[in-house]
Amino acid sequence: MTGKLRIAVGLSGCGVYDGSEIHEAVLTLLAIDRNGASYQCFAPDIPQVQVVNHLTGKASQETRNVLVESARIARGSIKDLREYRAADFDGLIFPGGFGAAKNLSSFAFDGSDCTVNDAVAHAIRDTKAAGKPIGALCIAPAVVAKVLGRVDLTIGSDPGTAAALEAMGAHHRKAGHGEVVVDRAAKVVTTPCYMLDSTISQIAQGAEAVVKALLTLAREG
Amino acid sequence: MTGKLRIAVGLSGCGVYDGSEIHEAVLTLLAIDRNGASYQCFAPDIPQVQVVNHLTGKASQETRNVLVESARIARGSIKDLREYRAADFDGLIFPGGFGAAKNLSSFAFDGSDCTVNDAVAHAIRDTKAAGKPIGALCIAPAVVAKVLGRVDLTIGSDPGTAAALEAMGAHHRKAGHGEVVVDRAAKVVTTPCYMLDSTISQIAQGAEAVVKALLTLAREG
Repeated sequence: MTGKLRIAVGLSGCGVYDGSEIHEAVLTLLAIDRNGASYQCFAPDIPQVQVVNHLTGKASQETRNVLVESARIARGSIKDLREYRAADFDGLIFPGGFGAAKNLSSFAFDGSDCTVNDAVAHAIRDTKAAGKPIGALCIAPAVVAKVLGRVDLTIGSDPGTAAALEAMGAHHRKAGHGEVVVDRAAKVVTTPCYMLDSTISQIAQGAEAVVKALLTLAREG
Repeated sequence: MTGKLRIAVGLSGCGVYDGSEIHEAVLTLLAIDRNGASYQCFAPDIPQVQVVNHLTGKASQETRNVLVESARIARGSIKDLREYRAADFDGLIFPGGFGAAKNLSSFAFDGSDCTVNDAVAHAIRDTKAAGKPIGALCIAPAVVAKVLGRVDLTIGSDPGTAAALEAMGAHHRKAGHGEVVVDRAAKVVTTPCYMLDSTISQIAQGAEAVVKALLTLAREG
């Protein structure tokens, strides 16, 4: 394979409590660029399930759109996730934040009985069917587990969340800061990031490690 | 001086077109942590001047609060800028984004005739009076220029913006990616970041360089 690898990044809003965790999202973009690949951000064009005031932690009465708010992280350069085609990319990665568990799926409310947004489920299945790798940070592995079922992954070490992943058919493996669980057969790479109490440097370390693992799988083709 | 240096980070919202530029803000926090210092985010508790849809680039009719939106970048750990006391910190730094030129000041609308938010002006003057260093990225040096007047700084190479800084009494010096202009007498450090056409890796490089320069001045006391 020649030329830059092209990675699609699936965002879920802008802010840890109702969207993509901003540090994880930015440091994923940085890791992709620093490792010589290019990125294109995507998000579903749907209303946010909640808008949370990040100063008070309380839900507000506002309404916001996931694609429009994700565009803040992407500096406007973002596409509707329905336009994603696995054929155009070498891998797909989802940063974490409650947006993955509220907007991309209903995992925050329904646990292992959650549903997954159609465009998100299609993007994951399309990538898997194309034999290309999928990455997920923090709580985003829950979305991958719901769609793919039998896959090895990590959300760190929280027992309740790990049990919910297992109830969806996944095999949870504990992981610490900067550690990546690689399922070579399913081509899925995951890392805990803010599912553990972390400094921002540890998030950078986790994002770098999971992106490197994703790019390695992508190069193996 | 023993212990970690403590750096205050002045945010202006969450998103390049109406708030803090998110990549610059996150990569400033990362650089502070990676270089062994600690950070505390601050923002003024005021309405945003505009809310811009980052997908379309158009201003919307929504109203948002600068402190509340900045809390997204800070993961909720943020204080009203009026609570900032230079005595509690070793330096103060402002990431860029239009928020610096719309919310922290009116530079985007009024150029060299701009006004600066009272809490922002007080924070800058208090830091200067305490003999502590001030950093600014991207367009944020315009705010520092308006408050301090005679200071050497950079916003990259844009002639119109540079002329506006000079009209406020500052001396503009051209700088490229990752380059920092240090005014040792005024203890002001600046770097262009997204005032130049940049990759996210170049923003990381600029944030790292300006934070390192800030910490060096802070250690010199």
